[in-house]
Amino acid sequence: MKDNLVLNAAGREVVTEINGVPAVPYQGVGKFRPEGRKAAPPVPTCADYPADGNKVVADLRTALMKAGLRDGMTISTHHHFRNGDLVANRIFDAAAELGVKDLRWFPSAAFPCHEPLIRHLDSGVIHHIEGSMNGPLGDYASAGKMRGLGVLRSHGGRYQAVQDGEVHIDIAVIAAPTSDPFGNCNGVNGPSACGGLGFALADSQYADRVIVVTDNLVPYPCVPWQLMGNNVDSVVVVDKVGDPEKIVSGTTNITKSPDRLLIAELTARFVEAAGILRDGFSFQAGAGGTALSFALFLRDMMRAKNIRARFVRGGSTQYLVDMLNEGLTDYILDGQTFDLAGVRSMRDNPNHIHTNPFVSYNYHNKGNIASMIDVVVLGATEVDVHFNANVVTHSDGRLLHGIGGWQNCLFSKCTILPIPSFRDRIPVIVDEVTTLCGPGELIDVIVTERGIAINPLRQDLIDRTKNSGLPLRTIESLKDEIESICGGAPEKPRFRDNPIAAIKWVDGTVIDIVRQLQ
Amino acid sequence: MKDNLVLNAAGREVVTEINGVPAVPYQGVGKFRPEGRKAAPPVPTCADYPADGNKVVADLRTALMKAGLRDGMTISTHHHFRNGDLVANRIFDAAAELGVKDLRWFPSAAFPCHEPLIRHLDSGVIHHIEGSMNGPLGDYASAGKMRGLGVLRSHGGRYQAVQDGEVHIDIAVIAAPTSDPFGNCNGVNGPSACGGLGFALADSQYADRVIVVTDNLVPYPCVPWQLMGNNVDSVVVVDKVGDPEKIVSGTTNITKSPDRLLIAELTARFVEAAGILRDGFSFQAGAGGTALSFALFLRDMMRAKNIRARFVRGGSTQYLVDMLNEGLTDYILDGQTFDLAGVRSMRDNPNHIHTNPFVSYNYHNKGNIASMIDVVVLGATEVDVHFNANVVTHSDGRLLHGIGGWQNCLFSKCTILPIPSFRDRIPVIVDEVTTLCGPGELIDVIVTERGIAINPLRQDLIDRTKNSGLPLRTIESLKDEIESICGGAPEKPRFRDNPIAAIKWVDGTVIDIVRQLQ
Repeated sequence: MKDNLVLNAAGREVVTEINGVPAVPYQGVGKFRPEGRKAAPPVPTCADYPADGNKVVADLRTALMKAGLRDGMTISTHHHFRNGDLVANRIFDAAAELGVKDLRWFPSAAFPCHEPLIRHLDSGVIHHIEGSMNGPLGDYASAGKMRGLGVLRSHGGRYQAVQDGEVHIDIAVIAAPTSDPFGNCNGVNGPSACGGLGFALADSQYADRVIVVTDNLVPYPCVPWQLMGNNVDSVVVVDKVGDPEKIVSGTTNITKSPDRLLIAELTARFVEAAGILRDGFSFQAGAGGTALSFALFLRDMMRAKNIRARFVRGGSTQYLVDMLNEGLTDYILDGQTFDLAGVRSMRDNPNHIHTNPFVSYNYHNKGNIASMIDVVVLGATEVDVHFNANVVTHSDGRLLHGIGGWQNCLFSKCTILPIPSFRDRIPVIVDEVTTLCGPGELIDVIVTERGIAINPLRQDLIDRTKNSGLPLRTIESLKDEIESICGGAPEKPRFRDNPIAAIKWVDGTVIDIVRQLQ
Repeated sequence: MKDNLVLNAAGREVVTEINGVPAVPYQGVGKFRPEGRKAAPPVPTCADYPADGNKVVADLRTALMKAGLRDGMTISTHHHFRNGDLVANRIFDAAAELGVKDLRWFPSAAFPCHEPLIRHLDSGVIHHIEGSMNGPLGDYASAGKMRGLGVLRSHGGRYQAVQDGEVHIDIAVIAAPTSDPFGNCNGVNGPSACGGLGFALADSQYADRVIVVTDNLVPYPCVPWQLMGNNVDSVVVVDKVGDPEKIVSGTTNITKSPDRLLIAELTARFVEAAGILRDGFSFQAGAGGTALSFALFLRDMMRAKNIRARFVRGGSTQYLVDMLNEGLTDYILDGQTFDLAGVRSMRDNPNHIHTNPFVSYNYHNKGNIASMIDVVVLGATEVDVHFNANVVTHSDGRLLHGIGGWQNCLFSKCTILPIPSFRDRIPVIVDEVTTLCGPGELIDVIVTERGIAINPLRQDLIDRTKNSGLPLRTIESLKDEIESICGGAPEKPRFRDNPIAAIKWVDGTVIDIVRQLQ
C-alpha cells in the first residue's frame, strides 16, 4: 500500500486526504453517518443592497472585484449550457487580468468548450478543478498536468458537498438566459434559453457571493424565478451567455445501430416482463441514443397496454415531451432539458416540472426522487462480473467523462445498464472495472445484444422473468463469450502510482481514485 | 429606569434579555449589523428515510413522538388557515396527553380559534408564545398571565429570526391542504385549500424535524410543491386541517362607511398627484375595507389613464384577481390569499405568483420585494405627531393584534397610512404612540377624512402634491382638530412595570415592549 492510501470498503485503494483536507474512505452503501449541521452562508442585510433592487454592475470584472476575488478562492459555475457555455472562460480570463492565482474551479461539469482554460491551469490562475471533466480537461488531468487532485462528484454529490460544507464556494457565477436587475433568473426564456438552472441551486444558496450573468435582462420580476434574486449580489449583462446551437445536447437522436436497437428493445421487454410496466409507474432514461430508443419501445408498449406513467424523469427531449402531451405520463420531473422542445415544454406546460439536485439526488436529505423511481436505464464504460460499473474512465485509463446523475440514479427500484458487449473490439464486461463508480449491489440488470444478466442479489427479478423467453444468462458466460470474440480480456491500462483524481460516492466518501497514465 | 431596561435609539425603554437570552435594543433603521452565518438544520441522510418515499405515520401523536418531542422544545405552526385552523390546538392536546411541559409555541400568527390553548398555558404545557397574538391570547398576555415574555415579530422578522438562529425550531408542524406521502405539499388544492404556504417556508427549511399534516393525500408528486418533501420527516393524514369557511378572511369587503370611502379616495388621489401612478408601477394594499376601496379607486384611475402595473402585491382577493385578468397588472406577487378567488387564481394563473417572507420581507437578505414597491397602504391603531405608528395595542393598552407584514412594508418607496381620525371617539393621532411598531422616518403620509399630512422628511412628496388641490395639512393641526372634536387627548392606559411582550424590529432588535395592564 502506498503512502496516504487505504483500502476502502469496496476494496479499492483511495486517498485519505484531498488537496490538504482529510477525506473519508467509502464505507459501503448507506453506511457512512453524517454528523453536525449543514453549511450556511453569511447573514446579509438589506442595508447593504440597493433599495430599488437594481444590482446591475458594469461588467464581470467589476462584479468579481466587488465580490472580493482573491488568490485561493473557489469559483463555481453550472453546465446547463453544456458545450455552448460562453461564461466560464471569461471568468478566468478576468481573473488572469486581475493577477489572481490558485483558484479552485468548481463547475457542475466541464465540456470541450472549456479547453481554453488549460492556459489558466498552466499559468497558475486555476489550481485545480473539482467537477466532471468531459474531454480535453479530463485528458489533461490524466496526463498528470493539473497541480491539485481533481474531484469528481455526482450531481447529487455536488449538492451534498456544498450543503455539508465540504466545498465552500466563495463566488458563484451563474449564467442565466433571463434575469431581472435583482437577480431572479430562469433558463426558459431569452435567446440562450437552456431550460432549467437547477444545477446552480446549491451555488445560489450557499456561496458567500453570487453573480448572475445574463444576455436577457427583463424588468423585475423575472418569472418564473428558478433561482432567487434574494441570494444574488450582482447582475452582469453581456452580449451572449451561451451558443444556442451547442446548448442542445448532441446525443438526442435515437440510435440507428441494429445492435443498439436490439439492446433497447430487450431492455423494454425486460421492464415489461419484470412487471414494472403498470399504471402509475415511473422511469428515467438518459438522452443517449440507446436510452432514447428504449423510451420509444416503452412508449409503444404503454400505448398498446393503455398504461399511463405517474412521472418520467428528464433529461427531457422531444420524445418525452410528446409522451407528456399524449397523456402517457402525468408529469415530467426534469433536471435538464436536452433539446428546444424540452425548453418550450418546461416553459409552457405546468406539468413539466423544473427540478434540481436537492430534490432529485442529494443523498444527505430526508429522501429524494432517485429512490422512488421504478426503473432507470443508464450507460457505463465498463461493468465487471460483480456488477460494479465505471462511467468516468475508458478501458485505456483516460479520464474522459463526468459522473452526472449516474451514481444517484442507482438508488432506483430497478437499475438497468443497456450496453454493447464491446466497443472498438474492446470488451465492456470485464473482471474488474478500471475505476469503480457504482457498487454492484445497486446495479440490477445488464442488457447486451448477446443477452441479459440479472444481478444474483435480485432473486425477485430472476423469478419474475424466468419464463419470459428473454435471453437471460449469467454475467460470467457473457464475459467469456465477449472475450472469445475480441480475442481475450482487454489489456490493463498502465498507470503511475500517483492519483490525479478522486471519485466521490453520493455521501461524500471516496469510492475510488484515478491515477496518472504512464 | 427599571432593572434590565435600557433606552433604545427610538427613546423607548426595552428589555435587554428575553426569556433568558440576551436581546439587542433597536439601533435605528439600517443601523444594526448582523454577524456570522445563517442557522442550519442537522445533516440528514436518505439511509434514515424510506426509499419508497412513504413517510405517512399513524397520527399526530406518533409523529410528535417520532420527532422526539420533550419538555422545553419549540413547536412552530403557520397561520394560512387564519381563524379556521384545526391543527395547532391538536398539537398541544397531544403534547398534554404525553405529559410534556414548558413548550414554546412559535406560530406565524395566533387567532381567536386558538383560545383553547389558554388551558395549556395555564397548565404549563405551553410556557409562552412567540408570534402575533390576535385577540384572546393577546388579552391573556396583557393581563400578565403568560409565564414567559411574548415576542411579536413581523412576517419578515419571523423569517429573519429563524434564519439567523435567534429562534431554533425543534419541531415544525405544517398543516397542508394537499400533500403527497413524501411531504411535498401545497395550499392550492384540496377541500381546505388556503392558497399559499409561504409562512411555513422558514419552518420547513430550518426546523430539526418537520411534520406535514394534511386532509388530502395525493400520489407522489404533489405539484406544485410549494414546500419540499425533502425537508419533511413525517406525514400525518387527518379528517380536516382547516374550516374552509373561516380560512377566508372576514375583512375582504369594500367599506360602506362614507368616511372610509373618502379616506380611500383621498389616498388614491394622492398617489396620482404624487406621480406614482405610471406604467410599470407597483402597489400593495391589504385586505381591510379601506385598503380594498383604495385599490378600486386606483383601478378606475388606471383604466381611465390606460395604465398597467408591473405587479401588485397580495394578500389577494377577487378584486386583485380581476385586475390581473383584466390586464391592469402583469403579475400578482402573493403572500397569502384572502378569498377563494385568490386561491383559484394562484392555482390556475401562472402570473399569480406564490411568494413567501424570504422573498418579500426578510431584512437579513440581499434585498427583498418590500423596498421595491412604489406605494403601500397600511393600517394603524395609533400614529403620533412624529409619524411613529402602532399596530399591536389599542389605546387602552391591550395587546390585540399582530404585526403581520406591516413593519416590512414600511420600506416601500411611499408608505401611506389611510386611517380614520378617531375610533369610538378616541383620537387615533396622538402625542406619543402607546407601543412603537414603526419609526416615523419610514412613514410618509397619513390620510384621514379630515385631511392629509405628509412627513416633513418627504419634501419630494410635498413638492409634487402642493398644487394638487388635495387637503394637505400638518399632522399637528390634524391632531388639534381631532382632540377638539373628541374632547381632548385620549387617556393614557395604566400599566404595571413588568413587560409582557417584546416588539421586534425587522432586524431582530427590540423596538419596544408591551407592559401588563393594571
